[in-house]
Amino acid sequence: MKLREVKPEIRVLGVDDGHYGPEDERTLVVGVVMRGGKWVDGVMCTEVTVDGLDATDRLVEMVNRSKHKPQLRVILTDGVTFAGFNVLDIQRLHEETGLPVIAVIKREPDLASIISALKNLDRTEERRRMVLRAGPVYRTVTRRGEPPVYYQCAGIEPRVAELVLKRTATRHRLPEPIRVAHFVATGVTRGESSGGA
Amino acid sequence: MKLREVKPEIRVLGVDDGHYGPEDERTLVVGVVMRGGKWVDGVMCTEVTVDGLDATDRLVEMVNRSKHKPQLRVILTDGVTFAGFNVLDIQRLHEETGLPVIAVIKREPDLASIISALKNLDRTEERRRMVLRAGPVYRTVTRRGEPPVYYQCAGIEPRVAELVLKRTATRHRLPEPIRVAHFVATGVTRGESSGGA
Repeated sequence: MKLREVKPEIRVLGVDDGHYGPEDERTLVVGVVMRGGKWVDGVMCTEVTVDGLDATDRLVEMVNRSKHKPQLRVILTDGVTFAGFNVLDIQRLHEETGLPVIAVIKREPDLASIISALKNLDRTEERRRMVLRAGPVYRTVTRRGEPPVYYQCAGIEPRVAELVLKRTATRHRLPEPIRVAHFVATGVTRGESSGGA
Repeated sequence: MKLREVKPEIRVLGVDDGHYGPEDERTLVVGVVMRGGKWVDGVMCTEVTVDGLDATDRLVEMVNRSKHKPQLRVILTDGVTFAGFNVLDIQRLHEETGLPVIAVIKREPDLASIISALKNLDRTEERRRMVLRAGPVYRTVTRRGEPPVYYQCAGIEPRVAELVLKRTATRHRLPEPIRVAHFVATGVTRGESSGGA
């Protein structure tokens, strides 16, 4: 599905992962359905392996089984690495859900140091390809007078992705659905949520 | 602390419990901090025993250890029974947190049948006293043209409680913080949230 317009009440899924300790093999990943960055319409979750390679499969499953799927227009994720270096393949997440995906982060990603860190893990080459497959990093200012955010996208033109980011940055320069997913994921895994996303 | 005014951005904690299966001894209880029923500011959680008697202690702990405590003005709970018949003592929750408590439900509670059901549990008399200690059940219409909601309260006059309920019924006749807590608690315990609170 091609996103052509960005309505004020556009239904968006924001995704973030929870906290994990040195002994945890897996951690929680939470998806929050919001309308236009304003109202929470639902919450879903899955679990991914710390430093594993299952983030893409688990997110595809979580989205495709959701009763909210028919209303969802776009998936926003907190970057492309979950639970350590469990790299999310945003192209495959887009292809297998049929939804556009935008991975957003607050700081300019240092791809060279991410790729260098992957050397300490198994299946380095596969992870490296997934990081590169996420494509170019764009930047945009979502709230006037605030620092920019950085994003990569799949199945959506940067020009349209930018409109989605602006529309959902209702309280902070990061999209509200990612912020709320962060509150839920850290609140549930730590007992109380931490700062911002 | 006495609540004297109900500002549009009043900081409210909404509390609801998660799903549990026949084998579960405990279930998740989630608290969502919102401003005036509009913005999510944080998420916290605890666990209570199914049909146990620890709901009050666990909620007192959860609220008192929270970094949001200094900003919180009122606690809204989904009724007075959690995880089966784990009765919440709203008077004690009020006394031990210093915050007003409003327990809200969609349908008029049938106290006689609740008290009758308690006979199948241990410490029946203690549970019965807690149910009665929650005081009279009031009703109010929070959204014009919609059915009323029913509530019990501790540490707050019904007249002021009503203002809080109206202020936080931003999308549904039940307060939005309870609805979002319901989405989070069921979403995390079942994989996806169910209908409304």
